[in-house]
Amino acid sequence: RCLKCADAPCQKSCPTNLDIKSFITSISNKNYYGAARAILSDNPLGLTCGMVCPTSDLCVGGCNLYASEEGPINIGGLQQFATEVFRKMGIAQIRNPELPPSNEMPPSFHTPIALIGCGPASISCASFLARLGYDNITIFERQKYIGGLSTSEIPQFRLPYEVVQFEIDLMKDLGVKVMCEKGLGVDGMTLMSLKEEGFKTVFIGIGLPQANRAKIFQGLSIDQGFFTSKDFLPMVASASKKGMCHCRSSLPELRGIVIVLGAGDTAFDCATSALRCGAKRVYVCFRKGFTNIRAVPEEVILKNGRVGGMQFCRTEQKEDGNWLEDEEQIVRLKIFHDILMPVVTEAMAPLKLTRWGTPEVNTDTMQTSEPWVFAGGDIAGLANTTVESVNDGKQASWHIHRYIQSLHGQTVDPVPKLPLFYSAIDRVDISLEVCGIKFPNPFGLASAPPTTSTAMIRRAFEQGWGFALTKTFGLDKDLVTNVSPRIVRGTTSGHLYGPGQGSFLNIELISEKTAAYWCQSVAELKKDFPNNVVISSIMCSYNKEDWTVLAKMAEKSGADALELNLSCPHGMGERGMGLACGQDPVLVRNICRWVRAAISIPFFAKLTPNVTNIIDIAKAAHEGGADGVTATNTVSGLMGLKGDGSPWPHVGVEKRTTYGGVSGNAIRPIALKAVSAIAKAIPGFPILATGGIDSAETGLQFLHAGASVLQVMTTILLLLDMCSGLKTLLYLKSLELKNWDGQSPPTEKHQKGKPVPRLEDLVGKVPQQQIIPSLHKCLMNALCLMHVCVCVCVCVCVCMCVCNTCLQDVIARALRYIGAYQELNNMEQVQALVDEEMCINCGKCYMTCNDSGYQAIQFHPETHLPFVTDSCTGCTLCLSVCPIIDCITMFPRKAPYQPNRGVPVSPIC
Amino acid sequence: RCLKCADAPCQKSCPTNLDIKSFITSISNKNYYGAARAILSDNPLGLTCGMVCPTSDLCVGGCNLYASEEGPINIGGLQQFATEVFRKMGIAQIRNPELPPSNEMPPSFHTPIALIGCGPASISCASFLARLGYDNITIFERQKYIGGLSTSEIPQFRLPYEVVQFEIDLMKDLGVKVMCEKGLGVDGMTLMSLKEEGFKTVFIGIGLPQANRAKIFQGLSIDQGFFTSKDFLPMVASASKKGMCHCRSSLPELRGIVIVLGAGDTAFDCATSALRCGAKRVYVCFRKGFTNIRAVPEEVILKNGRVGGMQFCRTEQKEDGNWLEDEEQIVRLKIFHDILMPVVTEAMAPLKLTRWGTPEVNTDTMQTSEPWVFAGGDIAGLANTTVESVNDGKQASWHIHRYIQSLHGQTVDPVPKLPLFYSAIDRVDISLEVCGIKFPNPFGLASAPPTTSTAMIRRAFEQGWGFALTKTFGLDKDLVTNVSPRIVRGTTSGHLYGPGQGSFLNIELISEKTAAYWCQSVAELKKDFPNNVVISSIMCSYNKEDWTVLAKMAEKSGADALELNLSCPHGMGERGMGLACGQDPVLVRNICRWVRAAISIPFFAKLTPNVTNIIDIAKAAHEGGADGVTATNTVSGLMGLKGDGSPWPHVGVEKRTTYGGVSGNAIRPIALKAVSAIAKAIPGFPILATGGIDSAETGLQFLHAGASVLQVMTTILLLLDMCSGLKTLLYLKSLELKNWDGQSPPTEKHQKGKPVPRLEDLVGKVPQQQIIPSLHKCLMNALCLMHVCVCVCVCVCVCMCVCNTCLQDVIARALRYIGAYQELNNMEQVQALVDEEMCINCGKCYMTCNDSGYQAIQFHPETHLPFVTDSCTGCTLCLSVCPIIDCITMFPRKAPYQPNRGVPVSPIC
Repeated sequence: RCLKCADAPCQKSCPTNLDIKSFITSISNKNYYGAARAILSDNPLGLTCGMVCPTSDLCVGGCNLYASEEGPINIGGLQQFATEVFRKMGIAQIRNPELPPSNEMPPSFHTPIALIGCGPASISCASFLARLGYDNITIFERQKYIGGLSTSEIPQFRLPYEVVQFEIDLMKDLGVKVMCEKGLGVDGMTLMSLKEEGFKTVFIGIGLPQANRAKIFQGLSIDQGFFTSKDFLPMVASASKKGMCHCRSSLPELRGIVIVLGAGDTAFDCATSALRCGAKRVYVCFRKGFTNIRAVPEEVILKNGRVGGMQFCRTEQKEDGNWLEDEEQIVRLKIFHDILMPVVTEAMAPLKLTRWGTPEVNTDTMQTSEPWVFAGGDIAGLANTTVESVNDGKQASWHIHRYIQSLHGQTVDPVPKLPLFYSAIDRVDISLEVCGIKFPNPFGLASAPPTTSTAMIRRAFEQGWGFALTKTFGLDKDLVTNVSPRIVRGTTSGHLYGPGQGSFLNIELISEKTAAYWCQSVAELKKDFPNNVVISSIMCSYNKEDWTVLAKMAEKSGADALELNLSCPHGMGERGMGLACGQDPVLVRNICRWVRAAISIPFFAKLTPNVTNIIDIAKAAHEGGADGVTATNTVSGLMGLKGDGSPWPHVGVEKRTTYGGVSGNAIRPIALKAVSAIAKAIPGFPILATGGIDSAETGLQFLHAGASVLQVMTTILLLLDMCSGLKTLLYLKSLELKNWDGQSPPTEKHQKGKPVPRLEDLVGKVPQQQIIPSLHKCLMNALCLMHVCVCVCVCVCVCMCVCNTCLQDVIARALRYIGAYQELNNMEQVQALVDEEMCINCGKCYMTCNDSGYQAIQFHPETHLPFVTDSCTGCTLCLSVCPIIDCITMFPRKAPYQPNRGVPVSPIC
Repeated sequence: RCLKCADAPCQKSCPTNLDIKSFITSISNKNYYGAARAILSDNPLGLTCGMVCPTSDLCVGGCNLYASEEGPINIGGLQQFATEVFRKMGIAQIRNPELPPSNEMPPSFHTPIALIGCGPASISCASFLARLGYDNITIFERQKYIGGLSTSEIPQFRLPYEVVQFEIDLMKDLGVKVMCEKGLGVDGMTLMSLKEEGFKTVFIGIGLPQANRAKIFQGLSIDQGFFTSKDFLPMVASASKKGMCHCRSSLPELRGIVIVLGAGDTAFDCATSALRCGAKRVYVCFRKGFTNIRAVPEEVILKNGRVGGMQFCRTEQKEDGNWLEDEEQIVRLKIFHDILMPVVTEAMAPLKLTRWGTPEVNTDTMQTSEPWVFAGGDIAGLANTTVESVNDGKQASWHIHRYIQSLHGQTVDPVPKLPLFYSAIDRVDISLEVCGIKFPNPFGLASAPPTTSTAMIRRAFEQGWGFALTKTFGLDKDLVTNVSPRIVRGTTSGHLYGPGQGSFLNIELISEKTAAYWCQSVAELKKDFPNNVVISSIMCSYNKEDWTVLAKMAEKSGADALELNLSCPHGMGERGMGLACGQDPVLVRNICRWVRAAISIPFFAKLTPNVTNIIDIAKAAHEGGADGVTATNTVSGLMGLKGDGSPWPHVGVEKRTTYGGVSGNAIRPIALKAVSAIAKAIPGFPILATGGIDSAETGLQFLHAGASVLQVMTTILLLLDMCSGLKTLLYLKSLELKNWDGQSPPTEKHQKGKPVPRLEDLVGKVPQQQIIPSLHKCLMNALCLMHVCVCVCVCVCVCMCVCNTCLQDVIARALRYIGAYQELNNMEQVQALVDEEMCINCGKCYMTCNDSGYQAIQFHPETHLPFVTDSCTGCTLCLSVCPIIDCITMFPRKAPYQPNRGVPVSPIC
C-alpha cells in the first residue's frame, strides 16, 4: 500500500535515515534481499530494530497513510519480514567488492581498534568500520554472552537470541573479533591498558551498570520483593533465551500483584515478563502520560517484612503550568513485588565526566575529552532506544575513521559517506551480449513516455539502466500532434487509484519531436554514456525510400541498434504505419529487407500482439534479415465506459475516443506467450521482451520464456531493485535451497498468522533445523563456535563462493515445459488437499466447488472445516480462490481418474 | 476485502440478521442501491444502526478477518456509506409491487393501528406493517420532534437529525401517519381511549421516562451539579440539532471536572457531550470492565452546596468468584458535575407490570398481558441498543399482523416472513427480446465451469438467472478427458490470493459428458423452467456431416438456441476444432451455412479474440446465416512461471503446460473492443457479450458497447446484485442526477477523509442543497411539511413515476463516441489541475510527471503541494497515479497547444 511519497516522511523520522520506501518497494516486488540490503546498509541491526523500535513514534508516526482508513503501514513488521527472509537465505556479508583485497589496503586500515561492550552501539560501529576496510577490530564484552542490552534485558518474546546472533554473525563475516568476559575493570583492563596493548582508538559502547533508586526505596532488597529492571530482566533473559549461555537458571517466581514504576518500553518489558513469571496482576504506574496525570510514590507500606503496598497521590497541572500535589486525591494499591526503572549513574575514568558520571561526548562526532576515545549508546547519554544507539555507533565509526586517517596524514570529509551492505549476491554478473552489443544489465527503458526526451534518458543512464529505446520518431512529413487526455489508468483490477494498479491504456502517438532532434540526442547520449546501449525506434509508412532514409539517418547518429515500430495500435495504423504494417508478414518481411539493405548495425522489429499468429510475423522479420524482434507492443482495447456510456479517455466536447493500447500486468500472459512461442519457433533469435515487466521476478519469467533483454515501460525508477533482485534470484538458484520459489521461502504452517506448534516441539524434542544453510554459511558457523573467531580468512572464503548461475543459463530455460495440449498426460491427475491447521474456515473453497466445480468439497456445519471427497477432479478452482497461501495443495491422485460422462457413450437421444 | 464466508458469522451476530456479505458484495460492485435495499429490508433503521451500533460486540466482532493483519471489516461504516448514497439518490420507498393496490386489499388491511412513541421500535414496527399492506397506521409522539431516543439522546455528532428524518420519511412513503405532541397521559390519552377511538391494536414503543437514582444521590438536583442522562442529553440535543424543533435552547454550561458513572454508550455520549459543553476533564467511572475492576460509589462529598467530590472503593473478585469491597484500596476524585445513568423505572397502566414498572411482555411475540397491546424497545426491557429495539418492532409487526388477521378469521404462520424493502427502482423492467427469444433479464451463465452439470444450471435458474449456456459438448467420437490442475488464479493484479483477483487461466476442455446427457438435460430444463432460456453450446471439427448431426440433435432436445463454439483456445484447436475453425473467416462462414441449413432455431457463433481482425470473423458468421455472435472467448496466454522456470498450472512429473485461456477483468478491454467494433460494423446484429462482466456496472458497459445480453463466467452467484444494480443504473439515468457516475454521487471535497468546510458554512450562511432531489421526492417532502401527511396518495404518485429508460435504449449507446484516431480533435487539449484541499501531499503526480511525462509539475519543498505549470501537455498520467479520487481533474487548455518539436522541422542531421 506504500505510496512511495516524494518526500518520504517515514525516512525523515528514522534515526538511521533508513530508505523505507525503497525497501517497501523491494518487498512488494518480492525482492527480499534488495529490501534487506537497503535496511542493513543503513542499519546493521536492522532486524533487531524492526522488532523492538518504537515505530509509532518514529517511521510509522510519519506515514502519510495515517490519514487513510486502513491506517499507516506496519513498517517495523515489513523490516523484520525482509531481514528474516534474508537470514533464512544464510548468506554472509562481504566488504564492498570495489575495495582492494585486505592485504592491498593502506597500512592505516590495519590499525588496531578496540570496542568495549558488545551491544547495539559497538556492533553498529564495528560493522561500519569493517565495511570501510579496517581489518583489526576487537570487541570486548564483560559477560559470557554477547548482544548487550538486546540480549540481557529485552525479553525473548520480543527479541529472540537468534536475531542478535544473526546480526553479530554478519559483523563477524567482515572479520571483527569478539572477546567475551573482558571489559573495563575486568582483570585490570582500563582505557590506558588498552592503549599500552597497542589499540590506537577505543569506542565505549557499554550500558549503564546500575539503576539508581529513589530515596524512599533505599535499603529494599530482592528478598523484600523489590527488583530494579537491571536485577529483574537479566534474570528473565538468562532463564528464557536458548543459546545465550550454557548455564540454565530458572525464572524468578512471582506471585500476586506487581507494581511497575514507569511506563517506558523497559517498564512494559518488566510488566509483561512479570506476568509470564506468575504475577496475578501487574499495575504500571507512571508520572506522565495520557493527559496530565502524574503519579508519584508517596509511601511504601511494609507488611510482614515485605513490600506490602504503596500509596500515590494524584498531581495535577494547574492553569499556570505548575504542578500541584493534591493530597485529597489518592490511589492506594497493594503490592507484593515492585520493579524500578533505572536512571543514569556510574562514573568512568579517565575521561572527563558529566555530573551523572557518564563521559562527556561531542554529540556530532561521539568523541570524548580524549580524542582517541569515542562513546555511544546508553553510556553516552543521548540514546533512548536501540535504534539511536545504532546511530551513535554509525556516527562514531565515521569519526573514528577520520581520526585514524588523520594519524596517517589523510584528510577525510567530515560529512559521513558510509559504505553499504554487500554480500556475495552483489558480485553476480548480470551483463550480457546480444547481437554483439554488450548490455551492462538486461533492464532498459522501452520506447514509451519515460523516454519522451533526451534529458529523461540521460537521467535513466545515470541511475544505471542498461539501455534505452528512444521514443519512436519518423520523418518530418509524418510529424504528429497528440490529443489529450491520452494515458489513463486501467480498470482491470481492484486498484483503480494509487499503487497496485494492474494496467494502463494510452492513445499517445509517436514522438512529437523531429528526427533531427533524436539524431542529435543519440549522438550526445552515446558520447556521454559509451557503455550504455541506445536503440533508436523509428517508424515510416510502407515505402522503401522512407525506411531507407530514416534508417540511414538513425544509424549515422551513432545508435547501437534500431527498433522498427511495426505495431503502434492506435492512430498510426490509420496513416498506414505501425500496426498497419506489422499485421501482415509480407509487409514485415519487405520492410526488414529494405532496412537490412540500408544499414549495417543490428535492428529489431517491434511486433504487435494483435494478430492471429505472432510466430508468422516473427518468422517474416527473421527472413527479412532482422537481428531480432521486440515482443510485444500494447494490446488494442477499450478500457471502459462510464455510467452514461461515455468513454475514458475522451477527447473534446464530443467525448470521442478510439481504441488504445493496453499495457501493464494485465497483458503479461499475452506477452509471455508471444515471447515463449517465438523463442520456441525460432531458437536463438534474440527477443527484446516487453509487456508487464514490473520487477526482477517478472523479468526472470520473460528470460526463462526466452527473452534476451527486458524493456520496462509502465513501471520505472526501479532499476536498483530490479538488478539486485535478479542477482539474488540467480545466486539463490546456485544455492539450490529446497522448496524456495524465487526469493520466497517455503510457507510455514500457521494458524491465523501464528505458527502451528509441531508435536515434537510440544513434547520437548529438539526442533528440526528449518533453514537449509548453504555450504559457506555452515563453514562460517563452525568458525564462530571457536568463540573468538579469527575471521579474516572467512572473508576470503566467502568471496571465493561465486555464483555459478549466469544469466545466459536461464534464458529460454522454461521452453521445455511448454507445448501442445496433447502432450499433457491426462493419466497424471491431481486432487485437492486442505490443510486443516491453516484453514480459516471461510468456506470459499466449498462455495466455489459447489457453484463452479464438481460439488466435491463438504463443509462441516459445526467445525466449518472443508473436506475434499473423491469426486474431486483436480480442477484447482478451490486453490485459486483460497485466501490463505498454500492452505490448499494439489497432490497426485492415487486411483485412476474416471470422467463422469453423465450418460454412457453411444445411445442417440 | 470481504471473504463472503460460507457461514457468515457477521450475519449471525446481528440482532436483525442482516445479510451483511450480500450488501458488502453489492458495495464492492458499486451497486449501492442493492446494498441499501438489503440493509433496509432487514432493518428499516439501517442508516441509524450503521452509525450507532456497537458493531465490535456484534457483526464486526464475528468477522473471520479478525485473524488477519488488516483486521475485521468496518461493517458499520460500509452500512452507513451505502445507505447514505441511497439517501442522496432521493428515491421513495414503495410497497412490494406484487401486492394489489391499496383499495383492492382485503378489509383487514384497513384496520386502524396505533403506535405510541416515534422511536426506533415504532418506526421499525410501522414500516413492516405498512410493507405488509396495512394502510391505516398512526404513530403518536409526545414530543414536538420525532425519532425518539435517536433524536433526543444520541448526540448530533454521532447521529445527525437528517438521518432520523430520512428513515422516518421512508416510513411515511408507505402512508404511515405521525401525530406529534400526543402520547400516553397527554391530553388524557390512555390505551382505553385509543381503543374507544377505534384503534384495534396498539404498539407501545416509548422510552423510559425517568432515570432511577442510586440511594446516595437522592435529593441531588441540577443546581447542585447533578444530572441524569435523561436530563442532560436532551438539553444537548435540542441545542445542537438543526431542524429538530423550532425553539433554540442553549447548551448546558459545564466547567471544571465531570464524573460520569457507567461506561455504556450512553455514558460515553454524556462524557463526550460534557467535553463539548465546556468540561475541563471528564472521568468515566464504571463497575465492570477491562478485567475485573469494579468501582462503586461510596461517598459523595458536598462542598459549598455543590457536589464536590466522590470516593470509590476498589472491589476485587476473589478466587471463589465472590466480590470483596476492599476499603484499603480507594480512589478519591474531585468533581463539579455528575451525570447518572438510568435504569428502568416508571410504571404503566392498564397492563400487567413487572417489578420494575414496565409491561410484562412475551419475548417471542412482544405481546403484553392484553392481547391487543404490544410493546418493544426500552419499555419492553429486552433491548439494550437501537438495533435491538428495531428488532423488537420487527418481531412485533409480524405478531400484530397475526393478531389482526386472526380477528378476520385468517391464520398466519407464526414464523415471520417479513416483506422486503422496495422502491420504484424495483419496478424497472429489464427483460428483453433477442432473435424472438424473450429473456427475463440480460444475465446468464456462459458455457464454463458453472454449467458443468444440469444440477448447477437448475440451481442458477432457481436463483433467477435469465439464461444459461450448456457447457460445450460434441459428438461421442470427439469425447475428451481433462488434465489436472487446469484452472488457476491470474497474476495480473496484486491480489494473488482471495477476493479481488483480476483474472483466471484455464486449460479445461469442453464437457466430459456425452451429447446424450446434455440433450436429455436440456429437455428436462426446458420442461421445468419454460421461461428461462437454454442455449446449447456445441463443437465439431470442420465437417459438414458432424455439424449437421449435432446441431439437429441439439435442436431436437428443445434448446431455445445454439452457440457454435469456434473459439476454445487450447487443446481443441489441435484436434481441428474450436479456434482452429474460428480464426479463418472462410471456415466460419461455411460452418454457419451448414448449421443454418440443418436447424430453424436461432444460433450464435462464439468468436475468439485471438485473431487479427474479429470484425472479419463476425461478418463471416453473419454472411453464413448466424443470428448473432458471442464475443468473446478467452484470450490465449501463459499466466506465469515460477522462480525455477516451471509453469503453473503444470501437469505431471514433467511439469508440462500449454497455452491456456485468460478470463476475467484483465481481458475486459479486449472484449469491450470486440463487442463495440462488431456492433459498429454490423449494426443490429445481436451480440452475446462475455469477458470480465463481474457486476451490473461492467454489464452496462457491455450493453452500452452494443451487447444484447450478458454471459457471466468468472463471477457467479451475483444475480440479485446484478439485476438490482442494472435496474438502479437505468432508473438513475431517468432521474438525470447531475455529475453522478452510475451509482456514484459526485465526489465531495475532502481533506484526509473529512469534508472540507466551505466558506459559506464557516461564516454561518445557509448551506447549499447538496442533493439534487428528483421531482417526486420534492413533492413528497412538500407533503411531509404538512406535518400529518395523508400519504396514501403519495404511494400512488410514486408508483406513477415509472422509469423512462428501458434496456433497449442503452444498447449500443456508446458507439457514437468510438471511432478513428483521426476523428479526435487535437485542438481540444486539456491540462491537469490539482485540488489543493484534497491533496495528501504524497508527490506521486510530481514523480510520475518528472520521470514519465513532461516535467510539468513542481513540488513545493515546504508545503509539499504540487503545482502544474503551463508545460503540461494533458497526458493524464498524473491523474492516473493519484491515490485520491478526483483530486486531479483535467480541464480544457486555454492557450493553443504548441508541441515541443525539440529541433525545428526540416534540417537533416
